[in-house]
Amino acid sequence: MRMVGEPIFPVEPWCVREPSLDLDRLGAAESVFAVSNGHLGLRGNLDEGEPHAIPGTYLNGFFEERPLPYPEGGYGYPEQGQTVVDVTNGKLIRLLVDDEPFDVRYGQLLDHERVLDLRQGVLRRTADWVSPAGRRVRVRSTRLVSFTQRAVAAIEYEVEAVDADLRITLQSALVANEDQPQVADDPRVSAALTRPLVAVDQDTEQHGAVLLHRARASGVLLAAGMDHEVDAPGDYDEETDVREDWARTTVVCVLAAGEKLRLVKYLGYGWSSTRTPQALRDQAAAALNGARYTGWDGLLQHQREFLDEFWDAADVEIDGDPVLQQAVRFSLFHVIQAGARAERRAIPAKGLTGPGYDGHAFWDSEGFVLPLLAYTMPHAVADALHWRRSILDKARHRAATLGMKGAAFPWRTIRGEECSAYWPAGTAALHLNAVIARAVEQYRLITGDLTLERDCGLEILVETARLWASYGHHDHDGSWHIDGVTGPDEYSAVADDNVFTNLMAARNLRAAADACERHGAAGVSREEIEAWRAAADAVHIPYDERLGVHPQSEGFTGYAPWDFHASRDQQPLMLHAPYFQLYRHQVVKQADLVLAMHWCPEAFTPEQMARNVDYYERITVRDSSLSACTQAVMCAEVGHVDLAHAYANEAALVDLHDTHGNTGHGLHLASLAGAWSAIVEGFGGLRLKDGRLCLAPRLPRALDRVGFRVRYQGVRLCVEVDHAEIRISVRDGADAKLTLLVDGEQVEVTPEQPVTRPVTRREPLLPAPSQPPGHAPGQGS
Amino acid sequence: MRMVGEPIFPVEPWCVREPSLDLDRLGAAESVFAVSNGHLGLRGNLDEGEPHAIPGTYLNGFFEERPLPYPEGGYGYPEQGQTVVDVTNGKLIRLLVDDEPFDVRYGQLLDHERVLDLRQGVLRRTADWVSPAGRRVRVRSTRLVSFTQRAVAAIEYEVEAVDADLRITLQSALVANEDQPQVADDPRVSAALTRPLVAVDQDTEQHGAVLLHRARASGVLLAAGMDHEVDAPGDYDEETDVREDWARTTVVCVLAAGEKLRLVKYLGYGWSSTRTPQALRDQAAAALNGARYTGWDGLLQHQREFLDEFWDAADVEIDGDPVLQQAVRFSLFHVIQAGARAERRAIPAKGLTGPGYDGHAFWDSEGFVLPLLAYTMPHAVADALHWRRSILDKARHRAATLGMKGAAFPWRTIRGEECSAYWPAGTAALHLNAVIARAVEQYRLITGDLTLERDCGLEILVETARLWASYGHHDHDGSWHIDGVTGPDEYSAVADDNVFTNLMAARNLRAAADACERHGAAGVSREEIEAWRAAADAVHIPYDERLGVHPQSEGFTGYAPWDFHASRDQQPLMLHAPYFQLYRHQVVKQADLVLAMHWCPEAFTPEQMARNVDYYERITVRDSSLSACTQAVMCAEVGHVDLAHAYANEAALVDLHDTHGNTGHGLHLASLAGAWSAIVEGFGGLRLKDGRLCLAPRLPRALDRVGFRVRYQGVRLCVEVDHAEIRISVRDGADAKLTLLVDGEQVEVTPEQPVTRPVTRREPLLPAPSQPPGHAPGQGS
Repeated sequence: MRMVGEPIFPVEPWCVREPSLDLDRLGAAESVFAVSNGHLGLRGNLDEGEPHAIPGTYLNGFFEERPLPYPEGGYGYPEQGQTVVDVTNGKLIRLLVDDEPFDVRYGQLLDHERVLDLRQGVLRRTADWVSPAGRRVRVRSTRLVSFTQRAVAAIEYEVEAVDADLRITLQSALVANEDQPQVADDPRVSAALTRPLVAVDQDTEQHGAVLLHRARASGVLLAAGMDHEVDAPGDYDEETDVREDWARTTVVCVLAAGEKLRLVKYLGYGWSSTRTPQALRDQAAAALNGARYTGWDGLLQHQREFLDEFWDAADVEIDGDPVLQQAVRFSLFHVIQAGARAERRAIPAKGLTGPGYDGHAFWDSEGFVLPLLAYTMPHAVADALHWRRSILDKARHRAATLGMKGAAFPWRTIRGEECSAYWPAGTAALHLNAVIARAVEQYRLITGDLTLERDCGLEILVETARLWASYGHHDHDGSWHIDGVTGPDEYSAVADDNVFTNLMAARNLRAAADACERHGAAGVSREEIEAWRAAADAVHIPYDERLGVHPQSEGFTGYAPWDFHASRDQQPLMLHAPYFQLYRHQVVKQADLVLAMHWCPEAFTPEQMARNVDYYERITVRDSSLSACTQAVMCAEVGHVDLAHAYANEAALVDLHDTHGNTGHGLHLASLAGAWSAIVEGFGGLRLKDGRLCLAPRLPRALDRVGFRVRYQGVRLCVEVDHAEIRISVRDGADAKLTLLVDGEQVEVTPEQPVTRPVTRREPLLPAPSQPPGHAPGQGS
Repeated sequence: MRMVGEPIFPVEPWCVREPSLDLDRLGAAESVFAVSNGHLGLRGNLDEGEPHAIPGTYLNGFFEERPLPYPEGGYGYPEQGQTVVDVTNGKLIRLLVDDEPFDVRYGQLLDHERVLDLRQGVLRRTADWVSPAGRRVRVRSTRLVSFTQRAVAAIEYEVEAVDADLRITLQSALVANEDQPQVADDPRVSAALTRPLVAVDQDTEQHGAVLLHRARASGVLLAAGMDHEVDAPGDYDEETDVREDWARTTVVCVLAAGEKLRLVKYLGYGWSSTRTPQALRDQAAAALNGARYTGWDGLLQHQREFLDEFWDAADVEIDGDPVLQQAVRFSLFHVIQAGARAERRAIPAKGLTGPGYDGHAFWDSEGFVLPLLAYTMPHAVADALHWRRSILDKARHRAATLGMKGAAFPWRTIRGEECSAYWPAGTAALHLNAVIARAVEQYRLITGDLTLERDCGLEILVETARLWASYGHHDHDGSWHIDGVTGPDEYSAVADDNVFTNLMAARNLRAAADACERHGAAGVSREEIEAWRAAADAVHIPYDERLGVHPQSEGFTGYAPWDFHASRDQQPLMLHAPYFQLYRHQVVKQADLVLAMHWCPEAFTPEQMARNVDYYERITVRDSSLSACTQAVMCAEVGHVDLAHAYANEAALVDLHDTHGNTGHGLHLASLAGAWSAIVEGFGGLRLKDGRLCLAPRLPRALDRVGFRVRYQGVRLCVEVDHAEIRISVRDGADAKLTLLVDGEQVEVTPEQPVTRPVTRREPLLPAPSQPPGHAPGQGS
C-alpha cells in the first residue's frame, strides 16, 4: 500500500488534477474521476476504453439477479442477490492516427492531464501523443453527466494534428457486455457477472444508434442511444454500423498540421422493469433530442448554473489546511453527484462510481449522506425517503419472514429485497430501521416541511416502530431490552442491548408516536402509541459503573482485550482474523457507542462522553470508512479538537489518498459525506437538540478559519468560525429570522442583523487519548 | 409425517422384521436394514437395486472434496468440503425369470419379508413373486458385512422355481457411479455428487472382477472386487463382463419346479489415499481370497460368535416394555456396526448407513457413542481416539488459523479438516474439544488402562488444554471466562460463559494437568500446568439468583420467552424461524445446561438439578435427536422417572419410528447410543464420580425389571434392578473384585459374592414438569 499522505493529486481549491497518467493507479482514478448525477454514472475510463481497471457505466436501479449459494443454508436466508451491471458503454471514442490506434501504452505520451472541475461539473482531459510511427496528435476531451437533463451524458472530443498531415479516424461506439476484469478474492468486492445483457433490438439513426438490451435474469430493460455532431475543417466521411451488442459511428478525415477535428457525442439512456422496449427506445431518443436541442454549450452552461446554485448554499471553506479544503469540496461534489437526481431510487454506498458492494445501498445513505443533503439539497432527501417508502411492502414482507411485525428494511439491496448473505452482519443490524426513521425526523426538523412526513414518512415511522415493539421485550423489572442484534460495529455481532440500537430504537418509537399525534395515524391505536412510549421510556442502557463508561453492548467491557500489538500489521483485521475471535474481544471496527453519542447526545452527560471517547478511542481500528468522521465529531465535542482535525482529514481523504486501498471499486460516499459532518458538526458544533439548531464552535489549532453554509428551514445560513469569534448570518428575504443556540445561548439572526459571538476554548476533561498501535488517524489502512 | 407410535416393525426381542414392503418407506428401511462393521457399510437396498430411495455403499474415510461457496466469505472459512461417496455397489444381484426382470413394482408380490437379525448379524430377505407373465419364484437372500474380516461383505442368494420349469438368469454386478436421487432442499441433507469416481483399471477374474476407481477431486483410490460360488441343480453357464464402470457375472440355468439356484457372492474392498492402484488391487483380491477360504458358513459362524461375545457383556434387558427392549438392542447393534471396526478412522454421525450430514463425524461420537463403547467394546474407543490423535496436526493448524494455541478439532469432518460452513453453529462450538478430552479421561477410568492415555491421550489433553488456556481470559476480579462460543444447544450461538462449555473446559484443563503429572509431559512447563489449574479453579459459572437456576449462558434467562403456542406446528423450528429469532429467545433445541448436569454432576446441588430440569424442560423442543437421551438421564436423576422412561423410548425409537422424518438419510447413532445411556445411566444411575463407579437405581413404574451388563476395568459387571432391589454381580476370574457405590454406599462385589441392595423410591423435589405444547416426549417431531 502507498505511504499515507503521499500526494497523488496537487492541492487546488476547486479541482482535482491528475498531472500525468499512472497505469498502476488507474482504478482509483476511474472512481475519483467518475461523473454522475445520481441517475446515470460514468467511471473515469479513458475515452478510448483501454487500458482500464474496471470499465463502468451505471444506471441507478439497473441490476442483474444472481443466486446466493449457501454451503449451509438457513431459514430466511435470501436466495437471490442483486448486482449492479456495467451497462452499454457510450463513453467510447476510439481514435486512429493514420492506421495506429491511440493507446497510451504504446508510442510516446508527451503529456497527459485530467481535471475534475468541481464548479463546472465536468471531467477534462488533454493528451499529447506521438504514435509508434511518429505521428503526433493533441487530444482534448470534456465529459459531463448532466445535472439538468438526468438521462443525458455528453462528450466533446477534439483531436489536433500537431506537426504533419494525418488521416484521423474517430470511432464513437456503444458497446454492451464489455469484458469485466476478474475481481479480487475479497468479500467486499462485488461478484463479477459475465455477459449479463441480452440484445432485444437495435436502431440506426442518421448520426448514431440506439441499442436495446434486457438483463438476463432480472429482466430489466435498457435503451442506450448516441448521437453526434461533427466539426471538421474540410471533408469528412461519417457512417454508422450497428450489431446486437455494439454500434459504431465512424468519422474519417485528413487534418493538416494545426487543424482540429471536433466531435460532440450525446448519450441518452432509459431503463425500466415495467415499460416496453418501444417506450424505452422513445425515451432514449427523447433524451438525445433534448441534449441536441440544448447543445454542448447549453449543457455546459446549465451544469455550471446548477453547481453555482449548489455551492452558494453548501460550500465549506477551510483556511489553514488546503488539503482538507480540496478534499471537502471533492466530497461535497461527489455526494451531490450521487444524490442530486437519484429521484426515488436508492443512493448506493458507492454512488454510481464503481461496482463495489455490488452496487448496494446500506444504512450509510440515511445515516451519513442524507444529513449532508438535508442541509444542502433537501429535495434529494425527500426523494431518497420516497424510495424507502416505495419498498415498504418488501420490508413488511421481510419482517414477516423474520417473525416480526412492521417493516424490516434490507441491510443491503438495489431493488428492495434483502441481499445480505451473512445475517449476523446484515439482517441482524436492525438499527438501520431506526436510522431511516431518524432521516425522516431530521428532514422535518431541518426543512420545516411537514408534508413529506405526512405523505411518506409517517408510514415509515409507524412500521419501523412496530418492528421495534415486536422485537424488544420488557423484562421482569419492566426494563425494555433489545437482544441479539448487531450494532454499527461489525467486529461485534448479535449482542444484547447494544446502546446505539437501543437509543435509536427508543427515538424511533417516540418519533412515530409524535408523528401519529401530529397527523393522526389511521390504523394506529392509542394503546399502540402508548406501548411505544412505554418501551422508549423503559429502554435499558447498560453502563459499566466500575469503569465509568458505557459498554457498547451488554457485557462488552468485560471481554478480553485484543492484542493490538500482535495485529499491528493486519489491516484490515477482518482479512487476518476470524469473526469468531473479533466478536468476543474488545476490538471495534467502527464507531458504535461513539456514534450513539453523536446522534443521541441527550442520553449522555459531558463526563460520560469524555470517558467513553477516551475508552473507545483506544480500541477502535477504523477498518470501516464509516468511523473517522464520527470520531472527528465526538473528539471535537469532548475537546480533542486537534485529534478531530486529523480524523476529519482521514475521512475526507479516503478516496483522494485511497487509504483503504479499494477506491478503485468505487468511492466511499458515506466517509466523504462524513468529512462534511466532521467539519460542520465537529468544528462548528452543529446539532439539532430538542428540535433546535445549535452551534458550538471549536477550531483546531492548525486552522485559521472555517466557513460553512447550510439551508435551514428555508433560509440560507452562513457560519464563519475563527479562533476569536463565530459570525452567523442568514439570507433569503428580509423576513427571514432564525433562532438558534450558540454554546447554549439563544440568539436570533436576521438578514439585517448578523450575529457575532466570541469563541471560548474549552479544556478537555481528559488528555487526548491514544489509538491502537498503527491506528492513529492518518496511519490507518 | 406419520403418527408417532404407529408400528412399522413388529415388536420382537432379537430382530427387526419388516413383514411386507412399503415403497413409501423404502428410505428409512434402507437405513434400518443397513449392515456394516464400521469399515464398510451397505445400505439395506434390495438385492436387485431397484426401487430404491438412496443407493449406498460406504467405506469409512472414502470421500470426495467439494467447494464450499460463500456468498459472503470470511477469514478462516473452510473452502473445501468433504462428502461421503456412494462407492462401487457390490450388493447388486439382478434376477431374470425367463425374460422378465424381478422387480417388486411389477408382477405380483405374494410375500416379502426382511429381517435384521441382531444375534446373527445378518439381513435376511424372502420374496415370493409372480412375474407379469405368471412365472413364480421364491427368492431368499442373506447379507452380511463381516465383523471378523473387515474388508469383506457376502451375500447368499437363492432362487427357487415354484411351480414350473423356468430359465433363471442371475446378474451379479459391481457398479460405480450409480445415479443418485435429487436430495431435498434441507440444510441437513448432504449435497449430491454426480459421478465422482474416475475409472483407473479393471481386472476380470475367473468368477468375478475387480474395479479400480479414483475419487475425482480428493484423489482417494478404491478397489472393489467380487467373487462367486454357484450351486445349481444341473448345468449352468457363467460368464463375466467388465467395463470401466461396471462388472457383471452372469449365471444362467433352467430350474425345474422345486429346484433352486444358489449363488454366494463375496465382496472385498480396499481404499487408500496413499497406496498405489496395484497395492489396492491386491488388497481387494486378498479380502476375496480370505472370504472364499472362510466360506459362507464360516463367515456366518464367525459373525455369530463375534456377536455372542458382544451381547454377553453388553446386553440390556427390559421387562415390561418390549418396544424399548427391541429398540435398545437395535440401538446397541447399530452402534457396534458403526464402531467395531472403524479402526483409527472416524465414527460418523450416521455411521455407514446413509449420506446424511455428508458422512461427517461430529462431537456426537465422543459425547454419546464412545461412552457406550467404553463400557462394552473398549478397543473401539481406543481406535476412535487414535483417529483423533492422527488428525491432531490438522487441529493444531486450525487453531493457529483461528488465532489460538493448541489444537481446535473440526466441528465436522471426514479426513480431519474443518468442513463446517456456518461458523456460529460449527467452529464456535469449541466444547467439542473438551468432549474429546472427556472421552480420553473416561476411557482411562472405565478400562483402567493407562497406556492409551500415555501413548495418545496425553497429547490430545495437552493440546486441548492449551486451546482453552488461550481462548479463555481472567477478568478484573480474577474470574475466568469463555466468551463467544456456542454450546450444545444450536438454537443459541456465540454466547458468553456457556455453563456446559465452561465446566467441560475446566475439566479438560484439570484432566490435562493430572495426566501431565501422571506421565510427565515433555514440553509442558510447571507454569503452564499451574495456569491450567488456576483457570479451572476460577471458572465463572453464571447463576440466576432470582430464578434459582443456571442460565445456559450469561444472560439467557433474561431473554424474551418464545411463543411456543404459535410455533406448535413448526417442527423442526429451524425450518420455520430464522436463527436471528431463535438465538435471542428462551428456546432450546437440545439439552445444554441439562447435559452439563449429566456430565459434570459435581458442579450442581440436587436442588439446583431439580430446578434446572424443571426450567429447561419447559423450553426445550428437542429438534435435535441429541436431547431426549440426556433429558431421560437427568429426569431420572431428579426423580421424574416415568418422564425419563418416555424420553428413553423417544431416544431409542428415533429410527425404528423415524420420528425425525429423516432416518432415510441414515441412522441417528448418537440417539441410539443415548438410549443405552437413558437406561443404564438413567434407570441404573451409572456414573463415574471422582473416578469411582456409582449406581443409583430408580425404575419407572411401567418397567418390572432392567438388567444390563458392562465391562469395567477388565471385569464383566451384571446389574439387575427391579422395584425392590438391585443385584450386582461380576465375572472374569475368581480374583475379580469391584468396589463401587450404590446410592452412596460403598460395596464390594466378587464373582463369589454378588451384592443385593434394596431400591428405595425417591420423591422428586418438584412435580413433573411440562414440555412446550406439542413437545411432550413421544409427541415431538
